[in-house]
Amino acid sequence: MRTYLDCIPCFLRQTLSAARALGLDEEDSADLMREALGRLQRFDWALPPPLMGRDLHRLIRQRLGNPDPFLPRKREHTAWALALLPDLEQQIAASAHPFRAAVRLAIAGNVIDLGAGTGWTPETEAWFREDAVDSVDGEAVDRLQREAAGAQEILFLADNAGEIVLDRPLLDRLGPDRVTVVVRGGPTINDATLEDARRSGLLERYAVIDNGSDAPGTHLPDCSAELVERFERADLVIAKGQGNFETLNDAARTIWFLFLVKCSVPAEELGVPVGTHVVHRIG
Amino acid sequence: MRTYLDCIPCFLRQTLSAARALGLDEEDSADLMREALGRLQRFDWALPPPLMGRDLHRLIRQRLGNPDPFLPRKREHTAWALALLPDLEQQIAASAHPFRAAVRLAIAGNVIDLGAGTGWTPETEAWFREDAVDSVDGEAVDRLQREAAGAQEILFLADNAGEIVLDRPLLDRLGPDRVTVVVRGGPTINDATLEDARRSGLLERYAVIDNGSDAPGTHLPDCSAELVERFERADLVIAKGQGNFETLNDAARTIWFLFLVKCSVPAEELGVPVGTHVVHRIG
Repeated sequence: MRTYLDCIPCFLRQTLSAARALGLDEEDSADLMREALGRLQRFDWALPPPLMGRDLHRLIRQRLGNPDPFLPRKREHTAWALALLPDLEQQIAASAHPFRAAVRLAIAGNVIDLGAGTGWTPETEAWFREDAVDSVDGEAVDRLQREAAGAQEILFLADNAGEIVLDRPLLDRLGPDRVTVVVRGGPTINDATLEDARRSGLLERYAVIDNGSDAPGTHLPDCSAELVERFERADLVIAKGQGNFETLNDAARTIWFLFLVKCSVPAEELGVPVGTHVVHRIG
Repeated sequence: MRTYLDCIPCFLRQTLSAARALGLDEEDSADLMREALGRLQRFDWALPPPLMGRDLHRLIRQRLGNPDPFLPRKREHTAWALALLPDLEQQIAASAHPFRAAVRLAIAGNVIDLGAGTGWTPETEAWFREDAVDSVDGEAVDRLQREAAGAQEILFLADNAGEIVLDRPLLDRLGPDRVTVVVRGGPTINDATLEDARRSGLLERYAVIDNGSDAPGTHLPDCSAELVERFERADLVIAKGQGNFETLNDAARTIWFLFLVKCSVPAEELGVPVGTHVVHRIG
């Protein structure tokens, strides 16, 4: 999808908030904001928002001289999620619908987002633990489960560090031998990279590849030839997170999107309120 | 005061919201946003925020081909305030501290602001009607009253249409023969101009001049020579609204600021929470 005009003030707010969170002083932050204004002005707004996010976070990393400034936060999130996982896995195993519960956990984990500034809360956990049929679209999840059962190759486009740990119960139920997990090609915000996947215990259980891009989404023209080929060939594609939705919602194939709607722009695209836990199939 | 980095995303949000409220289509709004990004990038951020507001609203008026696009809203606010005034004046007259009540109404009226997107609510009215000594700084207001009693020439820097009607009980108590009311030199957002002052019944009761500037504040280098001379000469200056505070809080003379704190930037300058009803004296 295209960049909405509403994204423009939001990008600048996010840039400033990242600059401050990462300890840039006011003078450097001012220089960064001036660069960001110039980039935004020259940006082709027909492109999806994560492409602009890519450029702005490149500027931030450059100014900091730090290739992965959110690494400490990502490690915290990963450690936190790993500590929580055994208990959550037990809940899922005890659920009346373990597959649905695993999907719920994967969507709940999408709340961990340093771009949007949202994090795991008691409400998130309560929502996951509520084993009600209608807390996500149960019929849609059952259809996803059926389609997954018939698939040889499943491509799972992951999103953020910490979140990918909470994806594991779903990945296990999709079948570790059929799933390839895709992470970002380089650090961008708190999005998961190969290094984050390693810390999350993913490498020893699943095939994991990176997409060759440092955009916080999956913009195919920005990805490696291997990723594009795997994307076209896969029997089933599952895409986590708003950035993957924003870059792939116009794609010419079947994709299942699992994410939390964090702002008005995807809310408007889907016609649902901000805060909705989405199970959305296209194609 | 200078423009804060926090003002930058906010300016773009306000520009977009004004564009939509005034009926610009998405294509024109996109062109406007691109121009606004360029202006913001080239803007000297050592200048106060209303100077940037001035430039952005010039762009908006130019693109609309309308010299006063908020005129219908300003007329609505003026008519609404004129209808309310007799009852409010009665409340003030019956108050134990009529001068304090008149100051409270003048500050309450500052809630009418199409830039910040705030308007008069039942809470505003309840706050005004609450005749408690401590709902504004009573001692500060008493000091203002004493200083006003000793002044020959009082300059009253007005703010928005509608709001200026609710300033009338205070203007009456300051003394119509000693007060000169200053409005903007040209339309900008919903700020009051001479035309708005006329509709508000001000011209027949008080001396009213315009400041020669179309900034939503009082930036002296942008104002007429007459205004600057009157500003320097006056025995007492009262300045309404956040825009006047942002442009004059570093001035080298005594000024009384009366306004509602509508965002984090003046809140930080003053060390008070957003939403505070301010009676603030400098110099």
